[in-house]
Amino acid sequence: MKIKVLQNLLQANARKAAEIRAILKDKKILMVNLISSPGSGKTSLLEKTLPLISQKYRTAVIEGDVETDRDAMRLEKYGVPIALINTSGACHLESISIEKAFTALDLNALDLIFVENVGNLVCPAEFDIGEDAKVALISTPEGDDKPVKYPLLFREAGLAILNKIDLGEHVNFDTKQFYSDLKKLNANLLVLEMSCRTGYGLQTWIEWLEKRIMEKQK
Amino acid sequence: MKIKVLQNLLQANARKAAEIRAILKDKKILMVNLISSPGSGKTSLLEKTLPLISQKYRTAVIEGDVETDRDAMRLEKYGVPIALINTSGACHLESISIEKAFTALDLNALDLIFVENVGNLVCPAEFDIGEDAKVALISTPEGDDKPVKYPLLFREAGLAILNKIDLGEHVNFDTKQFYSDLKKLNANLLVLEMSCRTGYGLQTWIEWLEKRIMEKQK
Repeated sequence: MKIKVLQNLLQANARKAAEIRAILKDKKILMVNLISSPGSGKTSLLEKTLPLISQKYRTAVIEGDVETDRDAMRLEKYGVPIALINTSGACHLESISIEKAFTALDLNALDLIFVENVGNLVCPAEFDIGEDAKVALISTPEGDDKPVKYPLLFREAGLAILNKIDLGEHVNFDTKQFYSDLKKLNANLLVLEMSCRTGYGLQTWIEWLEKRIMEKQK
Repeated sequence: MKIKVLQNLLQANARKAAEIRAILKDKKILMVNLISSPGSGKTSLLEKTLPLISQKYRTAVIEGDVETDRDAMRLEKYGVPIALINTSGACHLESISIEKAFTALDLNALDLIFVENVGNLVCPAEFDIGEDAKVALISTPEGDDKPVKYPLLFREAGLAILNKIDLGEHVNFDTKQFYSDLKKLNANLLVLEMSCRTGYGLQTWIEWLEKRIMEKQK
């Protein structure tokens, strides 16, 4: 019974996600879904990314948060449209959340939408929101075993970012084990090593985004 | 409709949790529910705690994991009974999971049960599993804003552990902001600063546990 209800939910979510995907295709907007644990650096990544990309490509952020506007406030100064979705306790965004956020954005004036999902390594990966790519962030202090322990996200992701690489030596992060585990889960997954604090890896991330924006606009 | 189903689920969960609480009272077992994001240090805390407590008090671990036995394997060498619950993708333990785990444990031969919940700062806090206390872990690299952003756990917790305190200076963790935010959420919440790596704070944690075990056995 419980499973049936969940499947109905997932089916309804998938239908709405397909509608969102069609809108994004029509409007030639790239939408990237940032997923990670709390504190891996999703908002920090946006703080570093927005100044580097929003002059060239018209960018917006859909900000998912359980109940505060803290992350949205952190991003306000970058001058891009932000649609905040408070999930009222729910642990992930669904496609219906994105549909609501779209009503607050001018889709005719956008090339790129970042979705910052609720901080959670489990459920957000289960819900298609119509995005072009899921980007999985993990940070070195979380430990090298996270892909194996929370595999769905890493199977679904189009890109993984290993953040806080500057802390790796302080936390005994086993890079070799990390890459070996990831390869078994998703052999084709590209991983970018990054430090939002030092800026390391940001340029490669921007290139990754630009390439996909241009493909979408073809 | 969706909300109604969730409420039914929560009500069924609460009924089962009350049964578990009655069993624990009858058997004079303290049960502690460890909740945090992935990688905050729940398993590391148990690795440090078990050698310090399991000689004196008969201890078991209920290990919640999405699909692997990685954490259970890390704890195997400490010689305490471990009941592993794979949630098959679900992002939290429910009281029915604990009831199942109890069938694998000899409750007449235990003083203390640690439950290591699924790594997730959102949903585990919503599900009463009949525990005596929820212990919320967060680690400094996650950022000082986590209590405000994921408030339910910190409202519900009987103890908070601020782990990886040795990394605080590397990650610009604002201790003052952290404590000020926590005070607003839950003025009576005791916070232990800890480093599982250096051992800092472990003794206070053991004292906290011992006091509660003795209260339960009165």
